[in-house]
Amino acid sequence: MSSVFFLDVLPATADAAVDYAATVHRDDAGRVDLLDFAVTRGDGVFETLGVVDRRVHARAGHLNRLAHSAALLDLPAPNLAQWAAAIDLAAQTLPDAGSGSIRLTLSRGVPGGGPSGWAVATPVSEQTARGLARARAEGIAVVLLERGISVHSARTAPWLLTGAKTLSYAINMAALREAERRGAEDALFLSNEGYALEGPTSSLLVRVDGGFLSPPVEEAILEGTTLNDAFAWLRAAGQACEFGHITRDILERADGVWLLSSLRLAAPVRSLDNRTVPMDAELTAELNAALERRAS
Amino acid sequence: MSSVFFLDVLPATADAAVDYAATVHRDDAGRVDLLDFAVTRGDGVFETLGVVDRRVHARAGHLNRLAHSAALLDLPAPNLAQWAAAIDLAAQTLPDAGSGSIRLTLSRGVPGGGPSGWAVATPVSEQTARGLARARAEGIAVVLLERGISVHSARTAPWLLTGAKTLSYAINMAALREAERRGAEDALFLSNEGYALEGPTSSLLVRVDGGFLSPPVEEAILEGTTLNDAFAWLRAAGQACEFGHITRDILERADGVWLLSSLRLAAPVRSLDNRTVPMDAELTAELNAALERRAS
Repeated sequence: MSSVFFLDVLPATADAAVDYAATVHRDDAGRVDLLDFAVTRGDGVFETLGVVDRRVHARAGHLNRLAHSAALLDLPAPNLAQWAAAIDLAAQTLPDAGSGSIRLTLSRGVPGGGPSGWAVATPVSEQTARGLARARAEGIAVVLLERGISVHSARTAPWLLTGAKTLSYAINMAALREAERRGAEDALFLSNEGYALEGPTSSLLVRVDGGFLSPPVEEAILEGTTLNDAFAWLRAAGQACEFGHITRDILERADGVWLLSSLRLAAPVRSLDNRTVPMDAELTAELNAALERRAS
Repeated sequence: MSSVFFLDVLPATADAAVDYAATVHRDDAGRVDLLDFAVTRGDGVFETLGVVDRRVHARAGHLNRLAHSAALLDLPAPNLAQWAAAIDLAAQTLPDAGSGSIRLTLSRGVPGGGPSGWAVATPVSEQTARGLARARAEGIAVVLLERGISVHSARTAPWLLTGAKTLSYAINMAALREAERRGAEDALFLSNEGYALEGPTSSLLVRVDGGFLSPPVEEAILEGTTLNDAFAWLRAAGQACEFGHITRDILERADGVWLLSSLRLAAPVRSLDNRTVPMDAELTAELNAALERRAS
């Protein structure tokens, strides 16, 4: 059962003396106006934060990305102190031992009105938790799918919103169904130039030539909050981590490929288009343990 | 003020003896579950039908496109008799003299549940009607924007959903904002190959070399319900109408360019990227009169 919090959306520059928690109202039966642009146009942005034992992961990273996405969509800048208050209220409704998620939504709102916003906290069910743990332990089969965009589009065609986490996720969902049709569990998007970009709901991490590599955020992808924390942990362990093009050749030479996301964390890829990819169970387990115990 | 009708969504193969109207419930205060995939993922399809004096335009065309979009998204096939009943009920709430719209939404629904659906009828306000009439009479300034996809993607990458009218319209809305930033009123998308495709919410019609031309639906665009009716009227008037690639060269040679949609109908383009485009006021007026008096 989810708990739902609606925000009286404040401008970014609201007075610091505001009692932010008082602007966030719990209403678990809450519903959305069907004229809201979130419903009619997928015209809004969102974030999904992982929570373990009520510790919220990568809070600052998610809030920063929410603001970045809002800017790309010409939405009013979110008041991050207010969203942080909503996260706190939502986290308190999750089990004190176990996993959950908090999903933030900032929408353009109803025509003629201001933006609307809400936060939904949902415990991870035992069945889902088992599936996520299995993916981390056994790896996932992944297929390569064209994303139909150039890596330059974030710069040359910003209206394609490639760096924004928008509510318009129909393509992402269709890509996951296509992966399933092909007998796989996830997809990895390729740019028009043939570079590996990201999954429909995940970031790409590759180990090759003794170091770690992930595509640059300039390459028409989302900045990865889990990826950033993984890089920080790897660097602290003395590993070289870089952002750069990931060609098919690099994918073939890699001795480790992972898809990273807020709930599943680092899922090792066990095959790419049916070609077996080496897995490092020990490193994956250590990385995921570090990601799970991240401070709030 | 809108009137809202929710459907108990029936499978396509429901018994013909069903009283379809009884499966459609008016609830003007109706709202959407915020876990509905329409809200969380833009994961559903829609149609907007124009209505004049309670006559619904291109009903069959819109219903067919709804079914086509649903198939591309792997949604259960809609029961078109039920949706037709919803259109009838919705149309009866619109003014008997004047314009309105009926928007159909078919969503994947809430996780674990079946699909959800609703229809919303909204009268066109006098202010909006004046704006639409002005666009038809004076023409619109249009800018060319990269769509970042190949015309082949409908065939090579169906998960990009280019032929489906999905709720994931954030890019379409961003393109309209980009057009406004450039001092224009609308946009025309170009494929990676440089072919003109469609507008964010409209189909493209061009007059060149003595005939009429529109891009083929195979080219990663939506089938245009208003465009199809315009072709039918033009052909009945003895004009040659063809589907084919529209290059920049053709756009420059054209002696008429229109963007067609269900509410604004045929809006003549008066400029493309600030270059003046010839307008034929007489033909535009005749075409729009024919589109307005279409039978239901």
